[in-house]
Amino acid sequence: MLRAVGVVAEYNPFHNGHAYQLAEARRRAAADVTVVAMSGNFVQRGEPALFDKWNRAQAALQGGADLVVELPLTVSTQPADRFARGGVQALAQLQCGAVAFGTEQPELDYAALGRQINALPPHPAGAVDYAQTYATQMNQFYQETLHVGLDDPNVILALGYAAANAALAQPMALVPVPRVGVAHDAAATSQQLASASWLRQHPDQLAAYVPAAAAVLYADAAATRWADFWPLLHYRLLTDTPAALRRLYQMTEGLEYRFIEQNWAAASVADLLKRVKTKRYTYSRLSRVALYTLLHLTNEDMTVAQPLRILGFTPQGQAYLKQIRKAAGAALLTRVNAAAGALTAPYGLTVRADRVYTLNNGHEQNFGRAPMRITKG
Amino acid sequence: MLRAVGVVAEYNPFHNGHAYQLAEARRRAAADVTVVAMSGNFVQRGEPALFDKWNRAQAALQGGADLVVELPLTVSTQPADRFARGGVQALAQLQCGAVAFGTEQPELDYAALGRQINALPPHPAGAVDYAQTYATQMNQFYQETLHVGLDDPNVILALGYAAANAALAQPMALVPVPRVGVAHDAAATSQQLASASWLRQHPDQLAAYVPAAAAVLYADAAATRWADFWPLLHYRLLTDTPAALRRLYQMTEGLEYRFIEQNWAAASVADLLKRVKTKRYTYSRLSRVALYTLLHLTNEDMTVAQPLRILGFTPQGQAYLKQIRKAAGAALLTRVNAAAGALTAPYGLTVRADRVYTLNNGHEQNFGRAPMRITKG
Repeated sequence: MLRAVGVVAEYNPFHNGHAYQLAEARRRAAADVTVVAMSGNFVQRGEPALFDKWNRAQAALQGGADLVVELPLTVSTQPADRFARGGVQALAQLQCGAVAFGTEQPELDYAALGRQINALPPHPAGAVDYAQTYATQMNQFYQETLHVGLDDPNVILALGYAAANAALAQPMALVPVPRVGVAHDAAATSQQLASASWLRQHPDQLAAYVPAAAAVLYADAAATRWADFWPLLHYRLLTDTPAALRRLYQMTEGLEYRFIEQNWAAASVADLLKRVKTKRYTYSRLSRVALYTLLHLTNEDMTVAQPLRILGFTPQGQAYLKQIRKAAGAALLTRVNAAAGALTAPYGLTVRADRVYTLNNGHEQNFGRAPMRITKG
Repeated sequence: MLRAVGVVAEYNPFHNGHAYQLAEARRRAAADVTVVAMSGNFVQRGEPALFDKWNRAQAALQGGADLVVELPLTVSTQPADRFARGGVQALAQLQCGAVAFGTEQPELDYAALGRQINALPPHPAGAVDYAQTYATQMNQFYQETLHVGLDDPNVILALGYAAANAALAQPMALVPVPRVGVAHDAAATSQQLASASWLRQHPDQLAAYVPAAAAVLYADAAATRWADFWPLLHYRLLTDTPAALRRLYQMTEGLEYRFIEQNWAAASVADLLKRVKTKRYTYSRLSRVALYTLLHLTNEDMTVAQPLRILGFTPQGQAYLKQIRKAAGAALLTRVNAAAGALTAPYGLTVRADRVYTLNNGHEQNFGRAPMRITKG
């Protein structure tokens, strides 16, 4: 029996820090196989991924992963707590014995904290203060109640994984991996480590901070940015009515009017989000709402249970897939044929969204694309 | 009292034949003033107009019109019979004593035919034959019942005007103007006459077939084509659900599925319409449905009673406006301020649609634009 450790990831893009984390996850969990549940072409910050899912999955397989599956679109574009829950559930479906995650505070007892979070009241006690964003208040509440430092978004995600894991019938082992190197928005260091955020802002410097094989991949790949979709988002906000926008996920509390009112004068996605921004919402939340608008994701759409698409594997990952096929089979999607890819099928949501991605990068993302089999050198 | 003759027009673009028709209308009706109810930025064939409404209104004022008002969007983008009805109603609101129209068959008794049409059963007798387009069948029915030749689309429109006019409480005089020169799709002749269709296909030859003042205007103007909106239409059909498309005007009988199914493989608007085409529908009908989709015009939107926007006038036209203001005032819109141009106001539909037009041509179409006052030289 092969033992697997799982990681929930975006790899936007895959870099040296991710390769280190995969190696550490394997070592600390004493696992035979590393399983990655990765965001597809749209990521949790409410943005298109810089490189497409095939490119990023290949980089991961060449950089230490044995099996990469695509997180459902209805998971990868969610707020952090739901993203964490969907990711952990995916790893559980993939029969992982352990879940590893990067954190600045590896010394915390995540299993205990996860159980504590699940026992908390569903909302911060007391009235919500509209002068602060909800995320800030949640963090403050966590800090005051759980007495943990929450300066790093990874700790928030780690607590999300811990809580989701504690809620499982059979919780996995939790494997915190100390983060090394740089904070999310800090500049690159001399240790060939840089954050994904920093790399997205400095694509010309990618080669120095990613594995050699990934550098080759990225050099050939078309990069995709929110800005590439501005004409389409601008057009949609121009022509959709408030009633149509209200059908979209998280378009609540009159946000549809703010988006419509600010749209015509806005010059870019960034400018639009700045115009719509209030203290009530984080940029990430607004960016996600803009993404739901671009992709026309309704409340109903976001309740769809989507399969886990297999993007690729190493020989070891392939052996593991064979081992778990009986237990995980129904949740897995290997090939997108006409039936699986029909717009009315659960995976159809991803087909639709990926076609928007394809409008920019020109590459078909689903039909005719089999899982990649990567034999590491 | 100034006497006015009215014309329903598109002027897409305004050419020598239109100038001739305006002069003949004035002469035959013995009118002091020529009033034009002109399509705005989107025309009856289901297309954006080649030049914007201000450009075309100016060309008309310099070419023989005294007053140009914009037909409601909810009229200008309708099938021929509703377009004709809305146009005639606009001229009646503008207190015209006569309505002039071009026709290949000026000898017909249009007043009598109009009354006959209104007395016909609402649909062709017998079952609809799906192997023919509805328009073809209507024409055949007209031919067999009214014994008129219907080889020219102008005759169909003329009959539409006649029927709408006959339905008015106070019908106007009908002034058929013999069409000279060329058929709609024929090549230009040596008489400096060419059809608007031919000119749209040969924009480099515009100067030879339009009044000198219009040639100057067109030389400076940005041309707009259906093709310019293909990326937006393609995107919308990619992301809208069948349920969302079904809310659009004339998206009936499962057409939404045909559009969605054919969209991804289509390479252009023309290719899409060709793929969606069946014997049941004319290209014009499908092009209009594509336009309703681009502009997101719902069934509800198309029932909105919109004002007649004054685009411009000559001194004579201005005097006439003063004369009719009491009778026609409520139907007229002179300036688009924040209230009149609000997206929830009746004219808001036009503001929304015109902004889509502006995405291509770059010129604001409504706010801050006063009627043009043209003194013919």
